[in-house]
Amino acid sequence: MKYYDPQTLAFLLNDVHKLEDLLKKERFAGFDKQSIDLLLDAVKDFSDSSLYPFVKEMDEKPCFFKDGKVIVHDQFGPIFQKAGEMELIGAFMDEKDGGMQLPLLVFNALYFIMEAANNHVTGYLGLTAGAANLIVNFGTEELKKKYVSKMLEMKWGGTMCLTEPQAGSSLSDITSSAKPTDDGTYSIKGQKIFISASDHQFSDNFIHLVLARVDGAPAGTKGVSLFLVPQYRVNADGSLGDYNHVDVVGEFEKLGQRGYCTNHMAFGDSGESIGYLVGEENKGLTYMFQMMNEARIASGRMGTGIASAAYYASLQYAKERPQGRKRQSSGKKDPSEEQTLIINHPDVKRMLLHQKAIVEGSLSLVLECARYVDMQMVSEGEEKNNYHLLTEILTPIAKTYPSEAGKEAVDLGLQVLGGYGYMMDFILQQYLRDIRIISIYEGTTGIQSLDLLGRKVTMMEGAALKLLAGEIESTIKMAMSKNELKSHAMSLGEGAKLIETCLAHLMPHAMKGNHERYLADATIFMDLFSTVVIGWQWLKIGIASLDQDAAFKQSKLHTMDYFYKYEMSRCKGLQKTICDDSEITIKMEAEMF
Amino acid sequence: MKYYDPQTLAFLLNDVHKLEDLLKKERFAGFDKQSIDLLLDAVKDFSDSSLYPFVKEMDEKPCFFKDGKVIVHDQFGPIFQKAGEMELIGAFMDEKDGGMQLPLLVFNALYFIMEAANNHVTGYLGLTAGAANLIVNFGTEELKKKYVSKMLEMKWGGTMCLTEPQAGSSLSDITSSAKPTDDGTYSIKGQKIFISASDHQFSDNFIHLVLARVDGAPAGTKGVSLFLVPQYRVNADGSLGDYNHVDVVGEFEKLGQRGYCTNHMAFGDSGESIGYLVGEENKGLTYMFQMMNEARIASGRMGTGIASAAYYASLQYAKERPQGRKRQSSGKKDPSEEQTLIINHPDVKRMLLHQKAIVEGSLSLVLECARYVDMQMVSEGEEKNNYHLLTEILTPIAKTYPSEAGKEAVDLGLQVLGGYGYMMDFILQQYLRDIRIISIYEGTTGIQSLDLLGRKVTMMEGAALKLLAGEIESTIKMAMSKNELKSHAMSLGEGAKLIETCLAHLMPHAMKGNHERYLADATIFMDLFSTVVIGWQWLKIGIASLDQDAAFKQSKLHTMDYFYKYEMSRCKGLQKTICDDSEITIKMEAEMF
Repeated sequence: MKYYDPQTLAFLLNDVHKLEDLLKKERFAGFDKQSIDLLLDAVKDFSDSSLYPFVKEMDEKPCFFKDGKVIVHDQFGPIFQKAGEMELIGAFMDEKDGGMQLPLLVFNALYFIMEAANNHVTGYLGLTAGAANLIVNFGTEELKKKYVSKMLEMKWGGTMCLTEPQAGSSLSDITSSAKPTDDGTYSIKGQKIFISASDHQFSDNFIHLVLARVDGAPAGTKGVSLFLVPQYRVNADGSLGDYNHVDVVGEFEKLGQRGYCTNHMAFGDSGESIGYLVGEENKGLTYMFQMMNEARIASGRMGTGIASAAYYASLQYAKERPQGRKRQSSGKKDPSEEQTLIINHPDVKRMLLHQKAIVEGSLSLVLECARYVDMQMVSEGEEKNNYHLLTEILTPIAKTYPSEAGKEAVDLGLQVLGGYGYMMDFILQQYLRDIRIISIYEGTTGIQSLDLLGRKVTMMEGAALKLLAGEIESTIKMAMSKNELKSHAMSLGEGAKLIETCLAHLMPHAMKGNHERYLADATIFMDLFSTVVIGWQWLKIGIASLDQDAAFKQSKLHTMDYFYKYEMSRCKGLQKTICDDSEITIKMEAEMF
Repeated sequence: MKYYDPQTLAFLLNDVHKLEDLLKKERFAGFDKQSIDLLLDAVKDFSDSSLYPFVKEMDEKPCFFKDGKVIVHDQFGPIFQKAGEMELIGAFMDEKDGGMQLPLLVFNALYFIMEAANNHVTGYLGLTAGAANLIVNFGTEELKKKYVSKMLEMKWGGTMCLTEPQAGSSLSDITSSAKPTDDGTYSIKGQKIFISASDHQFSDNFIHLVLARVDGAPAGTKGVSLFLVPQYRVNADGSLGDYNHVDVVGEFEKLGQRGYCTNHMAFGDSGESIGYLVGEENKGLTYMFQMMNEARIASGRMGTGIASAAYYASLQYAKERPQGRKRQSSGKKDPSEEQTLIINHPDVKRMLLHQKAIVEGSLSLVLECARYVDMQMVSEGEEKNNYHLLTEILTPIAKTYPSEAGKEAVDLGLQVLGGYGYMMDFILQQYLRDIRIISIYEGTTGIQSLDLLGRKVTMMEGAALKLLAGEIESTIKMAMSKNELKSHAMSLGEGAKLIETCLAHLMPHAMKGNHERYLADATIFMDLFSTVVIGWQWLKIGIASLDQDAAFKQSKLHTMDYFYKYEMSRCKGLQKTICDDSEITIKMEAEMF
């Protein structure tokens, strides 16, 4: 069963995002194209044999909570072991910290393959990697030494513990407390909900990265600190010590991703939970945002993976299912003719093209983001800062577009199957349930949109926006000289102008301190902005495809044409909505609903 | 728990769709406003007490197949009995046939209430009503006498059996066979799939209306006949006779509507299934389309009901959940302030307004359709034909808009709840699963779109389209004289023009016999057309709201403003896509995916 296209992935890595240039950097000297290809193949083999065959079963036999423990599907045992052996957890980390210094561009490609195969798996690996990386970057040498290697072997799991019942997305309202003890550690107390991957039978220990408030800390996010809180304490020799009273209180039963557990955790309830400060007090949110930003890009990648799997499942059906006939020039159909395959109906092709355009556009964006992080890592001074800014402005988009557009794509995938799509025997309904959480994870679409318009667009007087506009402009310039691309290049230019128009219209409200008005349509602005960004990615794909063999090139150009005809055409209407001054959502009072 | 707004429903019936005018007609002389109000109240009471309390449980304890029988939730027993006693099944039918001659406008309002309360229920009632009505209209006196009254009492269930495994939506490919026997009956043989409500423990008998092909009939839809096939044969005295070998082979496990069974049926497999011809041979599809058109409007109404229930569930959450704070003019938030309710955030209000605009616009359209059918019934000659044509052109839209836009609305309802929306404890995830089937039932969105552009728009040289354009024009005229509505009236006029522009662009392709090209973007045309139609409904609502009390009026005008700002603004982009000549979906060959 196909769940992604290896040829397209290789093309995106090598031809669109120029992996070769990256591999020339000293940091990545351990790799060449051949070793990367071997890695891609190895992860595909692992996914084919150990991940994909269990994706439906993990949904049908979901994880559950029993006697204070979360039990996950048996297959997670061999998966975690193999992923640890393959060094997939911290592959992007420094060699000195136990990693391989693999470019994030490639790391994200590997994870994309795995989550297209089985989106219930990668969260366990990714959170452990993210937590380990956070400890490496901000923890003491002692914490690093004690915890990181077991995590990279996937013997211990890692988590991020932010959400609390009374706070939700509002992190200023975190009330979990950390009381300093005499030996420099802290005593942690509090409830955390929606904590992914925080318990199961295949790890001896869980290393929780917990946001909590030290007694007397200032109100709001400025009083939030970060703590490492293991489920079991770890002795000086690395062996497991006493239970640290991190209790699983329950498991949330979810609509999808039912193999991936989401738990309610209690710290310091049944006894003392010792926590170790990571970095300095009251700077916890800043540190956590390193992990959060990784998790946002990972969420977008996961949405892309699910949409990819759904696309290939519906494509296969469309290529096998005969139904209906073509109309003759009289407008009638001849019932004595054989039925045609449904892939030959234009409306089915439209649904498939829509999926393909979203999947490949999203994947290209996720990889672009990863490449920017790589470039940030290997460059210095202003260049480094520029890549940092580009990553910052693209992150909310890389999180949001694949989740929102991906949801639509999977929905069309289900529709391709007609009645069968709605039946539990077919996997499309599962992908629809699975992908639905991506626009909620790590900050909902509403939160991402506020981040984009309220923070990223305005940061450093618009520096990130200017850099991104420059990148888009240079793609447009390149495309203007190609016959196949010229008209799309012009459309993309118009799209970019529409963003400027919106900002020119909105900025005065922010200047006047009317932030509610400035941000009221942030989600619509996200829709416009992200559509233009994906248009940009498609133009880059278009440019790179011109050097490919005829069939591959034609497939990519057609899909690009689809995106411009059916999606870029929405931009003008979105701009009109954003620039409308009627302030309807502000004026509608609660009692008017 | 609120799942619809009785005040809005009454307003739509009385003020927008002028129920009073309808009640002046002789056919409806048995009713006045007071008796209708009593009916609405009675159905609300029934829904409050017997339907809504079971909607979540019917999902959690779904129907299942065991020992050749389908077992549904226990509550269906009392529901069917009460619905029969209340005469809800055939209420719209002639008094002489056992009905009440209730206007369909009101009948649809009653069913809307019931399916907003519990969308797993009304299918059983509606299919039985539709089947009974079909027998009354096209069956012999004997069939009527034998079958209809038990169906109207909801003691026997009715179904429509169209779909076969190898044919799907392609009804020309039906292979179920009917062999004439010596006594004028037929011996029926064949497999039917996706048959709703076709077995359960609360009916003694099931009356199936089956499409099959008489031996030697012409190929295609012109050789399809309609048969009444009971599960148990009925003796001359009305008592049940022998088993008629209509076997339930299995039950489909669905993503949603899990209390509403969908079965695989086999006719004539385990012994002889006797069928009785309804009407004439080879005209089966024409008869069936009476039931199909009713079922299409009912599907749209059901989508509206689910979206209504989801809206009120998310509204309640938004009014109770505190989270986050308003920004001050500095752009910062003050963490020492109390958290605000999420309904005060503009983006949450946007999501709620979106739901409200879609729910009330869809409901108004469904009721408009029903009123046209009523007017068709009580008028003569050209007027009758005009109402028939208006019904014909609006039916695919009334089916499609509430299902597609309703899906989006429910999706936003889930998003309002954030992480909780994704949890099985909250009902939003169920509504999302439930509504997903509506765009598949009774012809998918693709099929409805082909019907609209390929058949309805062109029928009788565009007569239906002209009539609808006239209706829209007269609403625009009325609105032009009102200050609050003038700009929207102009937008609606522009929207209607965009439809004309599209048709002017597409028609030459049809004229030249290039039907594939003409129809390639039928689904996008449906999107444009239905958005304009809902804009029209909102303008009608706007006009009628001007005479209402200030708070109610303001609520409706704001929601109308929302629809025009956020939805009508999409029309121009859709027209651009439709008029684009690149023929991408036609040119993309199967092997290019």
